[in-house]
Amino acid sequence: MDQLNLSKHISSSFNEEIDIVRNHVMAMGGLIEQQLNNALMAIATADTELAQKVIDTDLKVNDWELQIDKECTSIIVKRQPAASDLRLIMAIMKTIADLERIGDETRRIARVALESFNSEQQDLLVNLDNLGRHVGQMLHDVLDAFARMDVETALLVHKEDKKVDREYEAITRQLMTYMIEDPRSIPKIMNVIWSARSLERIGDRCKNLAEYIIFFVKGKVVRHSSAEQLEHEARS
Amino acid sequence: MDQLNLSKHISSSFNEEIDIVRNHVMAMGGLIEQQLNNALMAIATADTELAQKVIDTDLKVNDWELQIDKECTSIIVKRQPAASDLRLIMAIMKTIADLERIGDETRRIARVALESFNSEQQDLLVNLDNLGRHVGQMLHDVLDAFARMDVETALLVHKEDKKVDREYEAITRQLMTYMIEDPRSIPKIMNVIWSARSLERIGDRCKNLAEYIIFFVKGKVVRHSSAEQLEHEARS
Repeated sequence: MDQLNLSKHISSSFNEEIDIVRNHVMAMGGLIEQQLNNALMAIATADTELAQKVIDTDLKVNDWELQIDKECTSIIVKRQPAASDLRLIMAIMKTIADLERIGDETRRIARVALESFNSEQQDLLVNLDNLGRHVGQMLHDVLDAFARMDVETALLVHKEDKKVDREYEAITRQLMTYMIEDPRSIPKIMNVIWSARSLERIGDRCKNLAEYIIFFVKGKVVRHSSAEQLEHEARS
Repeated sequence: MDQLNLSKHISSSFNEEIDIVRNHVMAMGGLIEQQLNNALMAIATADTELAQKVIDTDLKVNDWELQIDKECTSIIVKRQPAASDLRLIMAIMKTIADLERIGDETRRIARVALESFNSEQQDLLVNLDNLGRHVGQMLHDVLDAFARMDVETALLVHKEDKKVDREYEAITRQLMTYMIEDPRSIPKIMNVIWSARSLERIGDRCKNLAEYIIFFVKGKVVRHSSAEQLEHEARS
């Protein structure tokens, strides 16, 4: 009887600890969502102060990664989790690594807002804003899927990445055409291209996050799988 | 007495298993080194066949990542390692994630070799080759540091990344100047710029690998530390 109570106690402590970690991941995710929104807003409104704020706040993102990583390691040592408990911790550790890299890309995007653009160039930034909103929605949805460990939403996010890739390619082509027409604008437009690239990479990382959710819920590694394989594995 | 033998047996099995995993990491690292060399060779000699081989071989890199990840998880479950043993496994799991991403960048670089360049453009590729050799040396050195868990070499690699960044910036500036002078070349030169960016990113990832070595040996997380902090932590 004592034995049973003890094991129940240990197990409930594990759940409590993992709940704290999951809440921290959500807080980190929320901060990064805000960072992305602020970076896009800074570009759209040419707000250099907001851009600088995004760049400075990236340090907080890094701190979150280090803290959550530590918490996960400590749970492994103390609780020696197996099977799905360990899988959850692994999924969380991979998730925060990707979230931190999304933070890096967001900082890179914010740097573009420190540049000044003429009105014609400003028009080009509208496309960046559209791509940004699209990627922002992916990030929002995948964090939502993480909170509820919802495979169906994760699958939708995973599929969305193809659309983001196509949108990114269209923008790059348009920006290259603009550079050909006005070669003096090249250095400035290159910065816009880097931002588009950063947004595309954030999309890739949201796809990774979706894969970790499927890995946790289904116990199957779906990295490097084709879209069809993935859907099959996630639904089986 | 029996107890002691048993614990010795368990511990020596852990060592054996971890040795196998470490050898696998070295094999994966060796494959990626070869991939990078082949990608650079393919660009320098305009060898589309070799470029295609690099692209195809990336699947093997992905397989390595999945296999080693599985091996690490299985060791955690079976051996419930603590302290430095767990730290080693964590360092390995982070290492293979970065190695896989280096593989992705290598595949992107190889794609450039599928393009054809005129002789003037071919001259620009020489700079890419120099940057490539520099980054290739970093990769070689950090894998060497991993094999011997050598903090001093890891520190050297970490420092080297700043030089790679400067080299990359110089190349990008040169390529932009070329695009301004000959706007029709823009789409082609953009591909060279993407490759330079990929090489710069490989440098970043080698820096990450160096940090994991320091993390394992010193038991200190040195990610997001300044160069001075890092050196202090690694040598203390």
